[in-house]
Amino acid sequence: MLTKHGSMLLEREDVKVFDCTIRDGGLVNNYHFTDEFVKGVYDTCVKAGVDYMEIGKNNSPTLMSEDEYGAWNFSKEEDIRRIVGENNTNTKIAVMSDIGRTVKEELLPKSESVVDMIRIATYVHQIDEAIELVEEAYAKGYETTINVMAVAKVFLEDIDEVLEKLSKTDVDVIYLADTFGSFYPEEIKQLTLRYKKVADASGKRVGIHAHNNIQLGFANTIEAMHCGASFLDCTISGLGRGAGNCAMELLLSYLNDAKYDQLPVLKFIEKYIVPLEKELDWGYSIPYMISGQFVAHPRDAMKARANGDMNYVDFYRKMHKNKIDEM
Amino acid sequence: MLTKHGSMLLEREDVKVFDCTIRDGGLVNNYHFTDEFVKGVYDTCVKAGVDYMEIGKNNSPTLMSEDEYGAWNFSKEEDIRRIVGENNTNTKIAVMSDIGRTVKEELLPKSESVVDMIRIATYVHQIDEAIELVEEAYAKGYETTINVMAVAKVFLEDIDEVLEKLSKTDVDVIYLADTFGSFYPEEIKQLTLRYKKVADASGKRVGIHAHNNIQLGFANTIEAMHCGASFLDCTISGLGRGAGNCAMELLLSYLNDAKYDQLPVLKFIEKYIVPLEKELDWGYSIPYMISGQFVAHPRDAMKARANGDMNYVDFYRKMHKNKIDEM
Repeated sequence: MLTKHGSMLLEREDVKVFDCTIRDGGLVNNYHFTDEFVKGVYDTCVKAGVDYMEIGKNNSPTLMSEDEYGAWNFSKEEDIRRIVGENNTNTKIAVMSDIGRTVKEELLPKSESVVDMIRIATYVHQIDEAIELVEEAYAKGYETTINVMAVAKVFLEDIDEVLEKLSKTDVDVIYLADTFGSFYPEEIKQLTLRYKKVADASGKRVGIHAHNNIQLGFANTIEAMHCGASFLDCTISGLGRGAGNCAMELLLSYLNDAKYDQLPVLKFIEKYIVPLEKELDWGYSIPYMISGQFVAHPRDAMKARANGDMNYVDFYRKMHKNKIDEM
Repeated sequence: MLTKHGSMLLEREDVKVFDCTIRDGGLVNNYHFTDEFVKGVYDTCVKAGVDYMEIGKNNSPTLMSEDEYGAWNFSKEEDIRRIVGENNTNTKIAVMSDIGRTVKEELLPKSESVVDMIRIATYVHQIDEAIELVEEAYAKGYETTINVMAVAKVFLEDIDEVLEKLSKTDVDVIYLADTFGSFYPEEIKQLTLRYKKVADASGKRVGIHAHNNIQLGFANTIEAMHCGASFLDCTISGLGRGAGNCAMELLLSYLNDAKYDQLPVLKFIEKYIVPLEKELDWGYSIPYMISGQFVAHPRDAMKARANGDMNYVDFYRKMHKNKIDEM
């Protein structure tokens, strides 16, 4: 129906658009992006008004091979500065720490780094280590998030326990991460409200990281936002592992806020994503859909896609069997 | 989070899964489907438990060229019977009438036809003609729907007037059709509740026909269902004009009802859709996204896709200019 001109939504000052193009996209190509591409993403984020750009992971070179993985798996200070200089912009820089792959002593004090935020990806069973890392990063001067992964396979009572623990830490943002791309909007609603309740009571914010396995990456992101999530993850053209992520171009247009501009994103897509689509595979397809429906890790679907395997019925049966075997 | 086994939702007995693969897909190839393909869709619908299959349009051969368009633009009784025989199944057969392209006198009495339902696609300004056709079809013994198109460009007061008119007719189902693929879930919610109020008061049901321009075809369909829509349109693999439709495989899995089976759909996709994807273009892409964002007819985006035009920024500017010119 026709509605009045101007914003359909009230602007939400707490909303932050969070770009993960390089960090989640690096899961597709082991972080072998050219500097030109990474600089392109950075310039796009700055021009588009994106609030945060996650430039990579800060895994330790003592724990993962620099021959196998590109620079953005490690995100050394000098590499980041080669792209962003002193980053005198409104776009903050974030890096992601994987529990078990980072060495907290390697984290520079914020005064020596252009990084603004450390995001800590953790499974429920690693939560104590994750909290230790939060406190280390907080003490060194960084903003922090904890992204609790794989919650689709965790009992609600255990999620509550994790949230309770996190409420007592110095973490700034607690992230709901739909690791398997399996959640429907009504589940996102229930969970976001659950996270939001604890976050509100402890002065923290909630974030959402959605995947597109069942074509709900964007829909789940805006559902979470409606339920009070402030930090909204997205990637340019949905670039990311498997079915990819919430697309930045959809989100910026939806937010309908003069602060954001979709055009630089379209420009980047035209120049860098169109050629990349010929090299890398990501985005919605039937194997990723099945993987999401079975709440499974995307690895089998990624293998099927890499092999050009179109035997969807066999793939469905295999995933069904795996699920039965797990029970 | 982990939830109990079995259905996440209460089963909704009013819900009907409505297949439009051939009818909406025919907009991509002027209805030039082989009998094998159409029979494949029919067999799939029957096996998957789909409630209705829309086999084509019933445009009059006196008004549109049989050289230019394939059989399913006309859906003659003998053509339909060649596919479905007497249709002794639980899947009902529907055809779509376009106002201005059908001749109501050509409509056979239901007793002479295997068609169960006539769906009437109309713009708001044609509503009186559409109602005449509903009454003709009703008198001849058919179930009927009215699909009011392009409501994103209609004032709410005028939509209310149309709904009021429809409430006084013999139509069974009033359809909310997101013609431009431009609606966000909160708009779908508002509109569905509006339609539902009138439908409930007059003993009718509401249907939803969503498009995928902004990756919300599936999300909007389930949002409408949550707001009370009963008839849920979908197509196999989302086949349909432009960005296509809500994908049947996603919807059946979501409904999580023993009545429906996703596997025959995957089988069909493997055999018939995988090769078709090399010939025809449909589904989400940047030009269709821009088209949805500007609430525009997909024709310009279809042209851009047909020409392999990846100049997204120019396309955005062109659509923006068109919108300004319209104001």
